[in-house]
Parts: sequence; structure tokens; C-alpha cells
Amino acid sequence: MRVNKMQMLYEGKAKQVYATNNPDLVIIHYKDDATAGNGVKKGTIHNKGILNAKMTAQLFTILEQRGVATHFVKQLNERELLCKKVEIFALEVIVRNVIAGSMSVRLGIAEGTVAESPIYEICYKNDDFGDPLINDHHAVALHLASYEQLATIYQMTDIINQQLKQMFAAMDITLVDFKIEFGMTLTGAIVLADEISPDTCRLWDANTHEKLDKDRFRRDLGGIEDAYIEIANRIQNYYLTVTKEMEA
Amino acid sequence: MRVNKMQMLYEGKAKQVYATNNPDLVIIHYKDDATAGNGVKKGTIHNKGILNAKMTAQLFTILEQRGVATHFVKQLNERELLCKKVEIFALEVIVRNVIAGSMSVRLGIAEGTVAESPIYEICYKNDDFGDPLINDHHAVALHLASYEQLATIYQMTDIINQQLKQMFAAMDITLVDFKIEFGMTLTGAIVLADEISPDTCRLWDANTHEKLDKDRFRRDLGGIEDAYIEIANRIQNYYLTVTKEMEA
Repeated sequence: MRVNKMQMLYEGKAKQVYATNNPDLVIIHYKDDATAGNGVKKGTIHNKGILNAKMTAQLFTILEQRGVATHFVKQLNERELLCKKVEIFALEVIVRNVIAGSMSVRLGIAEGTVAESPIYEICYKNDDFGDPLINDHHAVALHLASYEQLATIYQMTDIINQQLKQMFAAMDITLVDFKIEFGMTLTGAIVLADEISPDTCRLWDANTHEKLDKDRFRRDLGGIEDAYIEIANRIQNYYLTVTKEMEA
Repeated sequence: MRVNKMQMLYEGKAKQVYATNNPDLVIIHYKDDATAGNGVKKGTIHNKGILNAKMTAQLFTILEQRGVATHFVKQLNERELLCKKVEIFALEVIVRNVIAGSMSVRLGIAEGTVAESPIYEICYKNDDFGDPLINDHHAVALHLASYEQLATIYQMTDIINQQLKQMFAAMDITLVDFKIEFGMTLTGAIVLADEISPDTCRLWDANTHEKLDKDRFRRDLGGIEDAYIEIANRIQNYYLTVTKEMEA
């Protein structure tokens, strides 16, 4: 059955979600809009939607091959991914391998400090309250997830971090930190959802430590488009290498 | 050996800690000073030090009798408790049975909402950063405690909450929430330290829901001294009842 795009279900800061003629599937459209500081800073990054859609498609494909269930089905065109319809947990799950950004500021730990073991955080995905840091008890009290669902989410997050660290290391990139989201499919499975891109990861060149992610936008460092293109190229090369290995 | 008070080791917002001629013991002196909002609001509550010293002595005595290890040794005079010397974990451990205060504001849950199960929080005890909410991974990254020590602290906290809820219920008081601190003795034992008083608990009359705690100071509700005296009297009566039962 051909998939037809139907009405928009949801519009976020960087993406739109559309219903399709298949109730199990949605189309996610990637925009060029960029925001930071809970929407205080706004702008666009030229072709970001095209680059992020492709990077997410390639990274999710590799993660699926390595045992991580995701919402991703296939890329439809340069800005649109076909995905399983999920109910998103209103949680931002953050993993920090190196201290940077809000954690550095909140707790007074120098940016660049390597964590002895990965640091996991969950935030309440709610713009009205500024996506505040919460813990498992808050998540349960807010009915965002059960303790059992949180345990599954942390297990999956741990595997995703191990896989992504290894993948980015092979691209000479340090995976400093990243934010992921999870959803529940119509059949009740918990899957990785949303995206993985320089919008949602801090990615530093492993040799020069140059920032190749949205911090260039947040901190007005310039060279934003070039950084995204650089990451997209490295992911593309890695993707072609590992999918060739799979076929061989 | 008679215990002699020696030099002051530390002065906090509400208490002073003095060395003694016994290296294992300290004297904790309770002041009348009150602060709120990380020291922004300042004042004194008449005789608070006397009331809080007595309430803490009585509550810690009952908790010890019920299997909770504490730093408390004995009350020396109306403002001073003799305690084991401990190294305090730089953690504020918070338990919420009913939603109120900062959690209500941060997450948009109406004050007075009863939690389906107790909500535990840890904050980084550091005025420079405003005692921010953290999670276990942050605590370990900041070298505040190990994962094993945190597990012990949570186990003890759970028992303390169960005991305190039952004790306050017998006094017709709802234990809304409370903050406790833990320390490590010179021999490596983790013990309940600091104090338990209307400075560190939210206590509502079980029938009228009247606030009988430091929120009267924080929120300028008046009747502060009367509220502390009311709680002190109810604790005193409960203490006399249960210690009489112990002797019988």
C-alpha cells in the first residue's frame, strides 16, 4: 500500500509530524528552524532539516542492526522519514560522557571534564516549566512513565550510548552528550524515537576538540552549516562502510 | 570523662558545631536565626533554638529506639546536643509524602496533592549553586557519595519516613515533607545527622491542615513561635508516652 501524507498531527520546534493513510505510521518532516534556551533564541540553519533527516535515518538504521528498537521505517525524501506511530514519553533522556553545557553551569564542574561513568538525566519535556531536571520518582508522580518503563528506558539508553560512542569514535568524533526520546508503539513496545543529530548531541572533533554541533548556534560561534555538513559526511562514510560490511 | 566545649568548627545558618575534648564528639548549638530562599530572607524566631534542640533530641531518641542509627548522644542543656563527630555528606535528602513547596512550583503539581508513593530527592548542599536538585549520577560525579552509600542512605531514608509518618500521625500531624542529612562517623558508619524540626519538615495539622512549620516564616503567615511551640508540645507528649511504654 502506498503511504499518503495526511493532516499534520503536531508541530515542534524542528519537526512536523503528519498522519498517513496507515494508522500505524506517521511521516516526520525535518525543518531548518533552530531554537535554543527553551525557544528564547531563534533562527534557521540552512539545509539543517535535510542533513538531520539523513543523519537520523542512517544512525537509526545502524542502531536497529545492532539490536536497538526504533520508530524508524525508511526515508521517503530528503526531509521526510516514515516512522512507526508512537506515543512519546514526555521525557528528555540525557547521557553525558563528558561534562558540558547545563550540567557544567548548574554544578560548577569544568566543561570538558570526562565523567568516570556515564551520567544519565531525565528532564520533564514541558516548555512551560523549562524542561526541568527530574528524577524517577517525579516522573512516576507526573504519570510520565512507570518505574518498570523507566528501567527499560535506562537499559536501552545504556546500550544506545555504548553503540553511539563506538560509532562516533570510528568517525574521530567524541560523543560528549546527547538527548534522546522514547515512545510507545500502538502494540506497547518501547522504542527509540525523535532524532539523533548535531541538534541533539554535543559532538567534538576527537583531535582538534572543535565543536561540531548546535553549540555553534547557541554560543554564536559561526560555521554552523559547515559543522553539520562535516558531521553528515562522516556519518555517511561510516554508514556506507558498515552497510557494505553487512552486505559482504 | 567530662565533656568540655572547645573551639567552633563550623557555623551554619541555624546551628554552630563545636569541638570537644573528646575527638569522637562534638557539641551542636541551636540558634534562633532563620533564613529562607537560600539566605535571601533572614530573621529570628524567638526561642527556636531551644525548641528545635529539644524536638530533635526527642525525635532522634525515638528513632534510635526504632533501629535508626543517628549522630545523637544526649542533650547537654537547652540549646546544646552532644553528638558523634561525623563528616556530613553534602546532600540534602528530601522525602515528599504530599506535594508542596519547590516541587509544586517546578513541576506544576497543586500543593496538597498526595503522592501515590513517597518521592525522594537529593540536592547538592552548596549555597553557591542554590542547593540544586541532582540525581545519583551527579552525586557520584561530584564525589559526594558512592552508589553503594546512596543505596544505604535511601534505605535509611525509607525507614525514617515510615517511622516519622507514624509518629506524627499519632500526634494528629501530617508529615508533608522533610529534609534530612547524613554523616559518616569516624568508624565509617552512615548515620542520620543534622536535625528534625519544623525548620526541616512541613507539618500540617491533620484536621485543620494549618501549617505548623517554617512555611509560616517563608510565606509571612504570622504565628511562627506559636506553631513551633505547638509542635514541640505534641512531640513532648508523644515522647513521654512512648518512653513511659519503654520503661514499663
